[in-house]
Amino acid sequence: MLLALNPSADLAKLVQSGDMRRLVRALPRYDDVQLAAQLDNLEAAEQDAVLQHLPGERRPQVLSHMRYEVAAKIIERLAPQEAAGLLDNLESDDAADILGRIDEDKLRQILARFDAADAHALEELLAYPEHSAGGIMSPSFFAVHQDVTIAEATRLIQTAEELPQHVQYVYVVDEHDRLVGVIGLRDLVLSKPDQPIHSVMATELVTVTADTDQEKVAECASRYDLVAIPVVDDQRRLLGVVTIDDIVDVLREEATEDILRMAGAGDMLIDAREFGASFRARVPWLGAAAFGGLLVASSLQGYEDALRSMPALALFMPVVAGMGGNVGTQSSTIVVRGLAVGYVETTRIGRLVLREVALGASLGMIYGIAIALVSPLLGTTGGDPLGLGLTITLGTMGSMVIAAAVGTFVPLIMHRLNIDPAIATGPFVTTAVDILGLLLYFWLATVLLSVTALPP
Amino acid sequence: MLLALNPSADLAKLVQSGDMRRLVRALPRYDDVQLAAQLDNLEAAEQDAVLQHLPGERRPQVLSHMRYEVAAKIIERLAPQEAAGLLDNLESDDAADILGRIDEDKLRQILARFDAADAHALEELLAYPEHSAGGIMSPSFFAVHQDVTIAEATRLIQTAEELPQHVQYVYVVDEHDRLVGVIGLRDLVLSKPDQPIHSVMATELVTVTADTDQEKVAECASRYDLVAIPVVDDQRRLLGVVTIDDIVDVLREEATEDILRMAGAGDMLIDAREFGASFRARVPWLGAAAFGGLLVASSLQGYEDALRSMPALALFMPVVAGMGGNVGTQSSTIVVRGLAVGYVETTRIGRLVLREVALGASLGMIYGIAIALVSPLLGTTGGDPLGLGLTITLGTMGSMVIAAAVGTFVPLIMHRLNIDPAIATGPFVTTAVDILGLLLYFWLATVLLSVTALPP
Repeated sequence: MLLALNPSADLAKLVQSGDMRRLVRALPRYDDVQLAAQLDNLEAAEQDAVLQHLPGERRPQVLSHMRYEVAAKIIERLAPQEAAGLLDNLESDDAADILGRIDEDKLRQILARFDAADAHALEELLAYPEHSAGGIMSPSFFAVHQDVTIAEATRLIQTAEELPQHVQYVYVVDEHDRLVGVIGLRDLVLSKPDQPIHSVMATELVTVTADTDQEKVAECASRYDLVAIPVVDDQRRLLGVVTIDDIVDVLREEATEDILRMAGAGDMLIDAREFGASFRARVPWLGAAAFGGLLVASSLQGYEDALRSMPALALFMPVVAGMGGNVGTQSSTIVVRGLAVGYVETTRIGRLVLREVALGASLGMIYGIAIALVSPLLGTTGGDPLGLGLTITLGTMGSMVIAAAVGTFVPLIMHRLNIDPAIATGPFVTTAVDILGLLLYFWLATVLLSVTALPP
Repeated sequence: MLLALNPSADLAKLVQSGDMRRLVRALPRYDDVQLAAQLDNLEAAEQDAVLQHLPGERRPQVLSHMRYEVAAKIIERLAPQEAAGLLDNLESDDAADILGRIDEDKLRQILARFDAADAHALEELLAYPEHSAGGIMSPSFFAVHQDVTIAEATRLIQTAEELPQHVQYVYVVDEHDRLVGVIGLRDLVLSKPDQPIHSVMATELVTVTADTDQEKVAECASRYDLVAIPVVDDQRRLLGVVTIDDIVDVLREEATEDILRMAGAGDMLIDAREFGASFRARVPWLGAAAFGGLLVASSLQGYEDALRSMPALALFMPVVAGMGGNVGTQSSTIVVRGLAVGYVETTRIGRLVLREVALGASLGMIYGIAIALVSPLLGTTGGDPLGLGLTITLGTMGSMVIAAAVGTFVPLIMHRLNIDPAIATGPFVTTAVDILGLLLYFWLATVLLSVTALPP
């Protein structure tokens, strides 16, 4: 009975101790998944030491449960012959996922060590785009002709040479190898042995094509509660199957992608050892933000005189802009995630926009007043506490209404333009809200307070 | 062959047209899942009209594929007798998920219409905490005694009165009903009929208890590539099974929760019609942000004289604080998501902190210089462009280093204190970065420029 993913004995310490006999004795205490989870976070030399002391038959299993990028690094360090020997024991979709992450030269060397048919199959898988159904599907599936009986289908399963490990469905094809139906193992067991399979199979099929985006595949599987989705070509011939374990990976990957993109922190989690990749992932977003910040500075220039006569105005810039930024981020986050999980329908957005703006206005009123009431306690100079309070109240409220509207509309427009709203929303919304919110705030100051402004 | 989740014919328009004969003709063109997805976004009266015109046998299926909150609203509008009749045809875990979201009074009225045993089973499911394994498990599973043969197990499946729809595994128990093994349907089909099941079953089992957090359950399923996880009590007796479709739901739900929490936008997506719930979800975060903003204003008070003599300083406050805020958000997002998917190990954080701070410093240098170089072009007054440029460069850089450190440490510390880092990181990091970054910026101004400051 295994419950914990991190058993108390810490593999890292064992490896670092250098006592390989203790390591070898400890390895059977971890199952393949636990070992893979621990290996993911070890240093390269430590990973190699553990794998070297691991019984040969466990190595492929452990490798297949590791993060693909880390497994790819391990494979790159092996001799091509050894790498091919190891990968040959993996399910071919796992092998392709790892091979897709290694250096081109090394890849060719490794593929040359496979027998021709296997190498060809792997090359075909590698040719599909990374985030497509083709890129995540397994080319092994179990299919029978529509005229066989249940008993014959069962015998075919029992005598199959290479049955996919996760087979849950038997696919049924016609004489042109076109997919015409499917039957789950459960229903196969429940059906009368002498029935022809086409009389009991399901014919309403959910299928995808090789170029379907993996996010769509995951959406389909999750909506239809399927544990595998067949991938077909334009003739409806079966190319492969996307299994639920890969769909679960996709769901986690896509959620991570959305979360990171919204913060401008790249597309995927990057190993802490990789400085360059992290740097490159974060440069563009910060560049956009810097440009936005300069735009803000430039657009506020006309108010230098106002600031000179009432510097207290500057002290409340962070809170006015910040409250707007917060509401804007809330609204855009709700829209981005809502679009991703199908919660926000682009055809019915009026209600959503209305709610967000109403929320911005009411929350803005509450916090605008609260901030203004507290501000005199700070004892800032200025001479006109009432005017300043009113400026802060209305500025905060206005900035929050603007932010709610911008934060809701921008991702919806991006989505309509087929731009991933998670990518571009952040800096755009922040900059727009900073500029509009602060311009409003300073304009209010010139109207409500005895401060002057140059025309902006 | 069904591919699209949103077929071109728009159900909403059909219902609104009021032409019920056309609606009835159109309904067979949608499968249950498509219909559920469309119903989710209709108005209450429209939903009721569609369900009323739907053949009775499709209703439970359609309902089970809708969002639980929306399905619960529909159930609440039905007479108790009708509600019970509908729910009785759902898998009991789906029924419990819907019933868990309806009004207490109505719940009792509906449960009174079930036969006593079913009502009792549902009440037991409803008693488990919402986000636990017990709360998402299905109490129906298929188990046999360890002494039966493969042939007998197969016959038991074929003659079972109520076989769970998604049965993938046959569980094996001893004479005390304790779980001792499991065999997949695939291996059942592959095994020799006269073998005793205990000789072919897997005995290394991944199990959870009813109070295991659903996030842990999903993590286990995804790591071990399982399509179902058994839930056992402290005697290892089987209580139920969490199936992969529920695990997929959990993964999506938890990702949504993390994304929304990081923006302070609540725990779950809220229907656009519900103003009050959205309001309540967002008030606390904004309150924390308002408090933080006042702290910022208060901590900068000593610099009013500096601002009076060089108001241009105020213009660059948003970019200095903003660049820090951006890097801080990037760092904290990476840590929060890394902790959620097991990418960040709390035992090995040195490398991560080092990378984040180094990134903050190098990105800060690049953008600090870039912003300072561009700033004179804005033509701000001030008289000391070099001093102002240096203040901006060092202020931006310092603010970004501080932000990277704070953004990395705060979620790690929260996690160590068993506080969900997604909840509390946002306002805390923003406020800390604003205060520290701007204090540094103004302090630099007093040192590098001929401006004065009161002691803060």
